[in-house]
Amino acid sequence: MADSAVTPTRAQNYPEWYQAVIKAADLAENSPVRGCMVIKPWGYALWENMQSVLDGMFKDTGHVNAYFPLLIPLSFLEQEAAHVDGFAKECAVVTHHRLKAGPDGKLRPDPASALEEPHIIRPTSETIIGHMYAKWVHSYRDLPILMNQWCNVMRWEMRTRMFLRTAEFLWQEGHTVHATSQEAVEETLRMLDVYADFAENYMAVPVIKGMKTPDERFPGAVDTYTIEAMMQDRKALQAGTSHFLGQNFASASGIKFLNKDGAQETAWTTSWGVSTRLIGGLIMTHSDDNGLVLPPRLAPVHVVLMPIYRDEKERDGVLEFVRSLEKELRAQKYDGRAIRVKVDDRDMRGGDKAWQAIKQGVPVRVEVGPRDIAKGEVFVGRRDKGPKEKSGIPRAQFVQTLPDILAEIQSNLFKKAAAFRDENLKRIDSLAEFEAFFSGDEDKAGGFAAVHWNPAAIGHEVLARLKVTPRCIPLEGKEEKGQCIFTGQPSSKRVIFAKSY
Amino acid sequence: MADSAVTPTRAQNYPEWYQAVIKAADLAENSPVRGCMVIKPWGYALWENMQSVLDGMFKDTGHVNAYFPLLIPLSFLEQEAAHVDGFAKECAVVTHHRLKAGPDGKLRPDPASALEEPHIIRPTSETIIGHMYAKWVHSYRDLPILMNQWCNVMRWEMRTRMFLRTAEFLWQEGHTVHATSQEAVEETLRMLDVYADFAENYMAVPVIKGMKTPDERFPGAVDTYTIEAMMQDRKALQAGTSHFLGQNFASASGIKFLNKDGAQETAWTTSWGVSTRLIGGLIMTHSDDNGLVLPPRLAPVHVVLMPIYRDEKERDGVLEFVRSLEKELRAQKYDGRAIRVKVDDRDMRGGDKAWQAIKQGVPVRVEVGPRDIAKGEVFVGRRDKGPKEKSGIPRAQFVQTLPDILAEIQSNLFKKAAAFRDENLKRIDSLAEFEAFFSGDEDKAGGFAAVHWNPAAIGHEVLARLKVTPRCIPLEGKEEKGQCIFTGQPSSKRVIFAKSY
Repeated sequence: MADSAVTPTRAQNYPEWYQAVIKAADLAENSPVRGCMVIKPWGYALWENMQSVLDGMFKDTGHVNAYFPLLIPLSFLEQEAAHVDGFAKECAVVTHHRLKAGPDGKLRPDPASALEEPHIIRPTSETIIGHMYAKWVHSYRDLPILMNQWCNVMRWEMRTRMFLRTAEFLWQEGHTVHATSQEAVEETLRMLDVYADFAENYMAVPVIKGMKTPDERFPGAVDTYTIEAMMQDRKALQAGTSHFLGQNFASASGIKFLNKDGAQETAWTTSWGVSTRLIGGLIMTHSDDNGLVLPPRLAPVHVVLMPIYRDEKERDGVLEFVRSLEKELRAQKYDGRAIRVKVDDRDMRGGDKAWQAIKQGVPVRVEVGPRDIAKGEVFVGRRDKGPKEKSGIPRAQFVQTLPDILAEIQSNLFKKAAAFRDENLKRIDSLAEFEAFFSGDEDKAGGFAAVHWNPAAIGHEVLARLKVTPRCIPLEGKEEKGQCIFTGQPSSKRVIFAKSY
Repeated sequence: MADSAVTPTRAQNYPEWYQAVIKAADLAENSPVRGCMVIKPWGYALWENMQSVLDGMFKDTGHVNAYFPLLIPLSFLEQEAAHVDGFAKECAVVTHHRLKAGPDGKLRPDPASALEEPHIIRPTSETIIGHMYAKWVHSYRDLPILMNQWCNVMRWEMRTRMFLRTAEFLWQEGHTVHATSQEAVEETLRMLDVYADFAENYMAVPVIKGMKTPDERFPGAVDTYTIEAMMQDRKALQAGTSHFLGQNFASASGIKFLNKDGAQETAWTTSWGVSTRLIGGLIMTHSDDNGLVLPPRLAPVHVVLMPIYRDEKERDGVLEFVRSLEKELRAQKYDGRAIRVKVDDRDMRGGDKAWQAIKQGVPVRVEVGPRDIAKGEVFVGRRDKGPKEKSGIPRAQFVQTLPDILAEIQSNLFKKAAAFRDENLKRIDSLAEFEAFFSGDEDKAGGFAAVHWNPAAIGHEVLARLKVTPRCIPLEGKEEKGQCIFTGQPSSKRVIFAKSY
C-alpha cells in the first residue's frame, strides 16, 4: 500500500487528485460524447439522496413539481436580449428530425427533414416556462405560481470537468411568478436560504450567502444571489444561485395579470437552481488523499459490515453474527430514517474491501471475525479518522451509539471545513496586499479576500491578471466605511474576491 | 350542471373525451414544441408516485440507478442494423453547437460550429450504454450488470397524443448484462412480472403478459415481451415491454468477458422500459364522464376535506374541526404510508370545489359544515360511486375505516376493469367471425380476439384492412391444437389480436 490510496495527492496535483478521487470512488466517468459524463451508481445514489432532501425542502416551502419540454424554439431564446447573449454561444442546436442513408450507405441528416425553425436543447428554461405561464396567469388569484422541475440541461462548454462543468448536467430549476416585486424578492431569498441550509446541514459545506456583483449576474436577471463555498485549494465554488428576474422575463413572455382593481400589471418572476455540480463541491470540500469522504446525512451507505473468516467452518458463524447485526442496525434510526447498512461478503481480501469502503467514503466500517465474536465486540473504523485507527466496541454499545457516531462525523466534517474556510478568509485593505495574497505558488496562494470595492472596479487589470473575480457581496456582512482598493472611491461594504471554478 | 362534468362523453367521442379528461383534471397541456407536452403538477405528482413504487421494485430486484448521456453519436446508432432501421426515421438530430446572428440580426446555427459527427437525442439508450458496458465488463466476475436509468427520450413521431405518444417522453430504461442466455431470459421475464405486478396491483389495470410476434419486436431484440391492457374503447395499449436482446447488442458494442475457464465469450443483454404512457393507460382504463378516476395507491391526494360555512362566525369552528380531522387522518396509514390529506379552504363555491375533486379523480371527498359537526359526522363521497351518492359517517368511524375504504376503492377499480376486459375478450375460430368482430361502428366493435394463428399470416390483408395487429402470444395461454384462421395451417396456441394505440 502506498502512503495514500489516491495518487496524486492533493499537495502534488490538486486537479488530478480530484479526477483520481472520482475514479477511486467510482462516481462517474467520461463518455464518448464530448463534455458529457456517465454518472455511475455510487455517484447517482448520492445525487438521489440530494434530490430527495432538496425536493422535500421545496415542497415544504409550497412548491410543486412539473415538467416542461427539452427543446426550445430558437425564437424563444431571442425574446430576452441579455439572455440570448448569455447562452447563444454554447447551445446544442437541433436542425433535423430524420436520418437517411447517403450514397455511401452512411447515415446523415435527411435534408428533407430540416426543421423550419431550429430548436435548442434547453440550457435553462425561463423562456419556455414563461411562455406557458403567460397562458396560465390571468388574474391575481392565479398567483403566486411556485413550480420546480428536475431535469437535464445542456450548455456546450469548451472546457469541461466532471460534475463541476459538463456539457449536459442534471439539475432542478425553480420558476415562480408573483404579483409584486417584494414577494418575488422574498421568494428569491427564501430559496437562497434553502440552498444554504442544504449545503451546511446536509452537505456539511459552509457557504457564504451573498449577492452577485453586476458582471456576474445570470443573463437577464435583475439580481443574482449565490452561495459560495471554499474548496480545499482555496478556490471558490458557486454552489447554487437564486435569481430575482424583476419583470424582464415576464415582459418578454407576456406574463400579465388583472390586479384586485381590475387593472393589468406585468408579473414578477424568479428562478433558482442547483445541479450535479454540488457533487463536485462535496468531493472537493471533504475528500482526502485516501479518496471520497461523505457526510453521513447524504451517504448512500452509512455503515459497511465486512465478515472476516478463513474457512467454511468459520464462515457460517461469522455470517450469522453479521446478518443479525445488520438487522439490529437497520432497526436503528439516524436523521429520522432507518440506518443504511451494507453487508460486503464478496469473495475478496478483507483489506481490499476495507480500502474500497474508504475510497468510496462510507462513514463507518465494521470488521467482524471469529475473535471479535468471541469477545462480543465489533471492530470499527471511521472515515473521519485515519484508516488504521480502528477500535473494538462491544456489540450492543455499537448498535446503540451508531446514530450518535454518524451525527458526530457529520458535525466534524462541517467544523473542519468551516475552520479551513475561516483560516483562509482575509480582510485586505490595499491593492499590494491583494496582489500578494493571490500571487505566488498557485497551490498555496489565495483564499477569500474581503475587500472594499466599488462597481467601477469591474474589469480592473489586476483582477484579469490574477484570474480573480468578485464572488459576492455577503448578505450578512456589516456596513463598514472604507475605500475601494482598486479605485480609491468610498465603499460601505466588503466584497468577497477569489479564484473560482 | 350538465349530465356529465366532461364533454364530450365516452359514448359521444372517445378520443375527444380522453383529451377533455386530461384538461378537466389539469394533468398536462400541449406545448409550443411540436408533439411535446407540458406535464402539469397534478400529472407530475402522479408520475412521481409511479416512479417511487417502480423504483422500489427495481431496487428490490437488485438493480441500481445510473445516468448516461442524452446525446448519441450518429455512428453508434449504425452499429445494430435492425436498431437503426427502427429509429433513424424519427430522431432529433443535433448538428451545431452555437448560434450566431445572421445579416438580418436573427439567430441561426453558426456554420463554423457544425459538428464533425451529428448526434441524435436518445430515442432509447442501448447503443451508448452498451459502449460503456464494453469498458466495464472484463470477466465473469463483473456480471451481471443490473442498471436502470430514469430520463427523457425523444422520438419524432408524426402523430402524437398526450401521454400515449409524444415526441419527448419520460421513462425508465433498464439495461442488464449476463453471462448466459438463460440468465438474460430470466431477467427479461422477471421485469415483465414486475411491470404486470405494478399495472395490476398499483394502477389497478389488468394486463395480459405475452410475447410479441416477430413483426412487433423492438428493433434489434431477439424476443420482446409485453403487457397489454384493454382500454374502455376496447383497444389495446402496450403498457410496458421487456426485451431479450440475445447477443445482438453485445456483439455490436463489443461486450465480452472471460469465463471461468479463461475463454472469451460475448455477453447476453436485456432492456426493459415503461414510460409516461402509463398515465394515458390509467386515464383510459378508469376515468368516466365526470373526469379522472385515480387508484388510491397512486393518487397524489387520498382524501380532500372541504370546509363549508356561510360566515366568519361559522368559519372558525368548521376550520378547527377540519384541521383536527386532518391531523387524525394523517396519523392513519394506508398502503404502509401516511394517508395523503388535502384541505381545500379556498374562497370559492363548495359545489365547484367538489366537482374539481371529482374531475381530478381524488378517491374520497369529505364535506364538513356546522350541521355535520353538530351531529358528530362527516359527509363522504367516493370517486368509485356517483357524484351525488354521499353519506354521513360518524367522525371516529370514518377516521378508523378510511384505509379500508381506500383499499376497497382500489379493489373495485381493478375488478371493474377486469370484468370489462373479460367481457370483451372473445375466442374466435373463423376469419368471417374475426371480420365481424372488428367491423362496424368503430366505437362499439372489437375487443381482444384470441385466435389460432401462424406466423405466415403476418401482413394478411384482412389485418391491414381492419387495422388490427397481433398484440401478444399470452404466456399463460394453454397449449391447444387448432388451425390458423388466416392460413389454415396448424397452430398450437392462441394469439391476442386487437386494434391498438
